[in-house]
Amino acid sequence: MKHLIDLDDFSLNEINSIIGKAIEIKKNPHEFSNVMHGKIIGTLFYEPSTRTQMSFQTAMLKLGGQVIGFNNPQNSSVAKGENFKDTIKIIGGYADIIAIRHPLEGAAKAASIFANCPIINAGDGSHLHPTQTLTDLLTIAEQKNTLNGLTVGFCGDLKYGRTVHSLVKMMLKYKNNKFIFISTEELQIPDYIKNIIISSGNSYEEVFSLEDSIDKLDILYMTRIQKERFTSIQDYNLQKDVFKLTTDKLKNANHNMIILHPLPRVDEIDISVDDDPRALYFKQASNGVFVRMSLILHILSTKIDENVENLTLNESCNNKLCITNHEKYLPHYFKKDNNSYFCEYCSREIKL
Amino acid sequence: MKHLIDLDDFSLNEINSIIGKAIEIKKNPHEFSNVMHGKIIGTLFYEPSTRTQMSFQTAMLKLGGQVIGFNNPQNSSVAKGENFKDTIKIIGGYADIIAIRHPLEGAAKAASIFANCPIINAGDGSHLHPTQTLTDLLTIAEQKNTLNGLTVGFCGDLKYGRTVHSLVKMMLKYKNNKFIFISTEELQIPDYIKNIIISSGNSYEEVFSLEDSIDKLDILYMTRIQKERFTSIQDYNLQKDVFKLTTDKLKNANHNMIILHPLPRVDEIDISVDDDPRALYFKQASNGVFVRMSLILHILSTKIDENVENLTLNESCNNKLCITNHEKYLPHYFKKDNNSYFCEYCSREIKL
Amino acid sequence: MKHLIDLDDFSLNEINSIIGKAIEIKKNPHEFSNVMHGKIIGTLFYEPSTRTQMSFQTAMLKLGGQVIGFNNPQNSSVAKGENFKDTIKIIGGYADIIAIRHPLEGAAKAASIFANCPIINAGDGSHLHPTQTLTDLLTIAEQKNTLNGLTVGFCGDLKYGRTVHSLVKMMLKYKNNKFIFISTEELQIPDYIKNIIISSGNSYEEVFSLEDSIDKLDILYMTRIQKERFTSIQDYNLQKDVFKLTTDKLKNANHNMIILHPLPRVDEIDISVDDDPRALYFKQASNGVFVRMSLILHILSTKIDENVENLTLNESCNNKLCITNHEKYLPHYFKKDNNSYFCEYCSREIKL
Repeated sequence: MKHLIDLDDFSLNEINSIIGKAIEIKKNPHEFSNVMHGKIIGTLFYEPSTRTQMSFQTAMLKLGGQVIGFNNPQNSSVAKGENFKDTIKIIGGYADIIAIRHPLEGAAKAASIFANCPIINAGDGSHLHPTQTLTDLLTIAEQKNTLNGLTVGFCGDLKYGRTVHSLVKMMLKYKNNKFIFISTEELQIPDYIKNIIISSGNSYEEVFSLEDSIDKLDILYMTRIQKERFTSIQDYNLQKDVFKLTTDKLKNANHNMIILHPLPRVDEIDISVDDDPRALYFKQASNGVFVRMSLILHILSTKIDENVENLTLNESCNNKLCITNHEKYLPHYFKKDNNSYFCEYCSREIKL
Repeated sequence: MKHLIDLDDFSLNEINSIIGKAIEIKKNPHEFSNVMHGKIIGTLFYEPSTRTQMSFQTAMLKLGGQVIGFNNPQNSSVAKGENFKDTIKIIGGYADIIAIRHPLEGAAKAASIFANCPIINAGDGSHLHPTQTLTDLLTIAEQKNTLNGLTVGFCGDLKYGRTVHSLVKMMLKYKNNKFIFISTEELQIPDYIKNIIISSGNSYEEVFSLEDSIDKLDILYMTRIQKERFTSIQDYNLQKDVFKLTTDKLKNANHNMIILHPLPRVDEIDISVDDDPRALYFKQASNGVFVRMSLILHILSTKIDENVENLTLNESCNNKLCITNHEKYLPHYFKKDNNSYFCEYCSREIKL
Repeated sequence: MKHLIDLDDFSLNEINSIIGKAIEIKKNPHEFSNVMHGKIIGTLFYEPSTRTQMSFQTAMLKLGGQVIGFNNPQNSSVAKGENFKDTIKIIGGYADIIAIRHPLEGAAKAASIFANCPIINAGDGSHLHPTQTLTDLLTIAEQKNTLNGLTVGFCGDLKYGRTVHSLVKMMLKYKNNKFIFISTEELQIPDYIKNIIISSGNSYEEVFSLEDSIDKLDILYMTRIQKERFTSIQDYNLQKDVFKLTTDKLKNANHNMIILHPLPRVDEIDISVDDDPRALYFKQASNGVFVRMSLILHILSTKIDENVENLTLNESCNNKLCITNHEKYLPHYFKKDNNSYFCEYCSREIKL
């Protein structure tokens, strides 16, 4: 079975094909309105996320399929003490494909071990959210007609923003993309991302002002800054306006620059920006449906030989938010890379 | 796009056509069981209302369409601080039509400003609930074969009951209808409704006893009286039985009088009345599905030129429950009527 | 109309036909993927039960039908004080068939009195859960190719486990089945079940050790033991391991013994047992969908003459959890058996 836990599960060819098909579906939705007749997606949302859940539901319904699921585990058998495995086994027996959102890192990977059907990671804690990145790529490809040679500015919380890390990594698979990271000192892009950029032969800049760099950008990718990420409220109040996108700051931007945001936004884009033709975040949100339609089609039409060999070690992952530390029966799978070992669930490196 | 925010958005011809089509659908549901194939309704319920939500869902499903939505904004991005506009923009990008219920007045109007798809008002605070009125009209038309020359008694909370106000206003668009308002002094029909009746050349009576007037009625429209509407519990206990419909009080009623109630009921109709053939409130509830099927068809097949010119003033609506006082980015639209100005969202008059 | 409140509502022929059709559907699901086109099931869950609710939803969707419903009455009109009857009347006006789960005993029976559509009991308190028993029967029939001549071991909470009582009663309708009841003294099978077994000419054994009797079993039916069923925590800690199924205890079991469990499990089956080919509880769970598909088909294609005569007495049921003691307008129906009277809702005997 084919799962989507991490975008690394897919080759670049596969990703291009998913994006290409999404564009095709968007042009001719009626040709695809029955292809999933009789199929069911289970949307298991262990934490609420209306937008993501609805975009999966809409995707399946627009393909002629159907939906079961929950968005509140307190109304489910989970509340009776059922373990994660059993829930996945049982709903995997009902559904043809499962999209899962979970507060713990590695939950989607854990689900893929037990399910009798393909699993799509709809967000596992602060770890991965690959369908958001596919949505971003579709929107860029559609607007720019290319995924190469672009200068992408990321603004806001670059330290914790998983969508930022994921999109940077994907853009590195294409050619000649440049990155400008715009943030406070506290919320700078992590070193491991910088290292990946450098080791792949690409370049980046780090700046502290949105205004000073906006004119260089083909894409401005805004993210939500959370008050609690700042060291103090004073600090927050001092800095928040520096990173707020306003019509004023847009004056220096290129006419064909596009503004993206994974949404929900709170305050970081002034509402007056919405009327600017470069503001594409709502279009981006609706692209989420088309890319998920394409993804479901891809996954359910791909058969793979399951000869994955997992490395099991007599070690525990020391990430407290890793699902292996909550569901104790999970096998301790690790990945070896050079001389380092990484938890197969949450990707955290372990020291032996 | 065609929205249904207020019944005034529709001409009498349109309303008659919706009712006529509802009767047709009820007779031949199978002819309509695929007409909405591939279409999705978003049911956005910012406060719970199972009945109304399910009737919209059933309507769309019986037309061959599909449903997404929520009934608890605490499980949605709203809980993350997302503004109303963004939710509407995004779900309007997923769905083909939206039915919205919201505790604030004017919410449906506000949604219609931003949505990329038609909006149906499924109740905005105590302001409007037009699909209930359509349901009432369908039931009367079906049972009486006319909407003219009827004597309608309204009993219960006539002061706050938005369904009462709305049905009176609609019945005035037909000919020779008379109204008998049966309530306590505290819960009498508001003056502005009386004025509308008089200025349209119709007549009404106000009485304090259900028993004394029931023999004159073609239709008895019961409503829920809420304990907290009375000045004291003593007052409530004294008066509640005066307005409770019992089999006893029905003895004086005409054989072909029909009893309606928008439901839910609590105590105002004795359960033994349910077995009386004149008790039509459950039939009325199921008519809600047919009239909504007809409404969805009407809205999705009507294209209109959007040349609505809104009057924007540098004033705020002073209704604390108006959505403009909660979502600050909303434009301040007003309607001028004679020399008065009314908020375009919640219909409240403002003093300049 | 045909309801399923209690399995006694069905003849053995009907039950065999439902199981036979379920096996047929499982083999050729595509032949049934449109038979319920245009039909709607209402799943009214007055208490949460994801698994059961989803299995009904999946069943209807896989037949080409659609779903409405709720899983949290706090989000419904129930919260506004609406009585049970009104909810059932109204949703019975929307849906073509209703599956109802309710914490009070007799709720499904009460619903069947008022609904305009067939009712399926999806669990009424600790009273009945007939679709679980149909699921069990399908799994046994499928695995053993017979429902006769089997030795069935029941392990765990045999006192309160309604699925155990129900399956025993059903297995007695087939030939030459034997029962071994494995439990603590506190959780032994009730006398009335023993009496039914004896009076039907069958035999049973009662034992206190799973290990000692596992080698005699064709079927091991495990159930959840709840901590609070024991007289003390000390008692629980002493005894819980005696009844926990482990790979070790399975060593003595027959190669073709099958292990069933109605799920959810908590601790009573060690997770390592899942990999044993005899562990069929997840297959059993997925069989729940097929048997419910078959059941829906059966019920919606069966017309019966409604000449049920109910015996009404001027007595009240003295079971505090009986729905008649919460919804006061319900008629007081009783069943006479020999010289005893039983509440028609919750099956409790009353003393006159």
